[in-house]
Amino acid sequence: MLSKNKIKFLQALQRKKIRTEEALFVVEGEKMVKELLTEQDFMLQEIFATERFAQENATLLSNYQQAFTVVTPDQLKKISSLRTPNKALAVVQQRQLPIDWAFARQDLCLYLADIQDPGNLGTILRIADWFGIQQLFASPETVELYNPKVIQASMGAFSRIRYEVMAFSEVQGQLQLPVYGTVLDGNNIYEQTLPAKALIVLGNEGNGIPAAIQEQLDVRIKIPAHPRSGTESLNVSIATGIVCALFRKPS
Amino acid sequence: MLSKNKIKFLQALQRKKIRTEEALFVVEGEKMVKELLTEQDFMLQEIFATERFAQENATLLSNYQQAFTVVTPDQLKKISSLRTPNKALAVVQQRQLPIDWAFARQDLCLYLADIQDPGNLGTILRIADWFGIQQLFASPETVELYNPKVIQASMGAFSRIRYEVMAFSEVQGQLQLPVYGTVLDGNNIYEQTLPAKALIVLGNEGNGIPAAIQEQLDVRIKIPAHPRSGTESLNVSIATGIVCALFRKPS
Repeated sequence: MLSKNKIKFLQALQRKKIRTEEALFVVEGEKMVKELLTEQDFMLQEIFATERFAQENATLLSNYQQAFTVVTPDQLKKISSLRTPNKALAVVQQRQLPIDWAFARQDLCLYLADIQDPGNLGTILRIADWFGIQQLFASPETVELYNPKVIQASMGAFSRIRYEVMAFSEVQGQLQLPVYGTVLDGNNIYEQTLPAKALIVLGNEGNGIPAAIQEQLDVRIKIPAHPRSGTESLNVSIATGIVCALFRKPS
Repeated sequence: MLSKNKIKFLQALQRKKIRTEEALFVVEGEKMVKELLTEQDFMLQEIFATERFAQENATLLSNYQQAFTVVTPDQLKKISSLRTPNKALAVVQQRQLPIDWAFARQDLCLYLADIQDPGNLGTILRIADWFGIQQLFASPETVELYNPKVIQASMGAFSRIRYEVMAFSEVQGQLQLPVYGTVLDGNNIYEQTLPAKALIVLGNEGNGIPAAIQEQLDVRIKIPAHPRSGTESLNVSIATGIVCALFRKPS
């Protein structure tokens, strides 16, 4: 049964304040909910899905009898944050994987400095997972990880990476890795020898890397624009993809 | 004066059919409209903007007295396709720059095979402009260039690149360039010597490069995922950014 109070509660989870207080978040869509049911990395508190999803995934759902509710497409629309709701919605417990500092010091890590757009953050998680970058850090001003648009855009990558909100100075103090950052007047990244272990800083969509963090960069890099280009900058998620691909390129 | 009929007409331009019939499209936002006024690459048929925009850009607008209308924020909202309209909106004549085949044969070109998402297409235009790729081709199934979301996401790059809807076989017949395409079982792009002149094919978001075009690829490439990755694919605009950056990297 989908009570009025339950609908209210699920709608309230679209707000950051409520998500944080309840330590819950929402995952939507057939594919991602199925992944969560299969991988069992997260504690699913409740699942709402259409009759059809229930039939097709009866075995996976058998562990969740008490916590599973069949809903009509209309009901799903009421509780969904998507324009076109997609068969299933799960209420999931937030979890915090501990930072493995020893591992992080031996690899690439990302620091997200004030990324504002949830689509960009989700896409960056997907890129990080693609390139096997396990540990991400974010400034407190970066958009919240559990924002539904971040979760959707990550295409499931949110479940595979480690993510910690932490001041830059603290991260740098622990990692002691060379710090690279993309800035408009940086050195041509094509001419740099890029190390296997580094902390890469990515900046805000409008303002780039905040001044206080720019001072801490060891190497200022840029992806060079072609002389013919009239474009002022690349989108931060595009820049992240390029920088990660160049760092991972065997030399 | 913003008549009822004019409002109706401007709203109708949000539909592809009407844009094509009228050979017009709409550009929105302070920055992009200002660029159009400055660069004069396009014929602006009409401009609608707030009092403030008019004051700040009086000199630029002086050539357009007959074609310029001051609107209130409420009126702008009515004619805008944006959630948050931004000061100015221009009705612009579609133009078709002729293909410079001789130039295109000496450089990188892109072929967009059934790109569906307007945000992706706009972002790809921005990437192409950044890397100085002047000539883009698109399959007839690719989302329309003049879709307002394409124009917005391109951040003005639409005005600097050449774009032609054309069957793949015809493009290939004219260019006679080596054809590269990203496919999931392709050769590791890091291990390829990438030429300065090539036609790069980018595929549909869900289905990749259509089978008929895959048969025409000279080199099948992929951006290798890290062994740790659980992500199935990269977004097509992220892949475009990475592929273009690697092609433009001096060897």
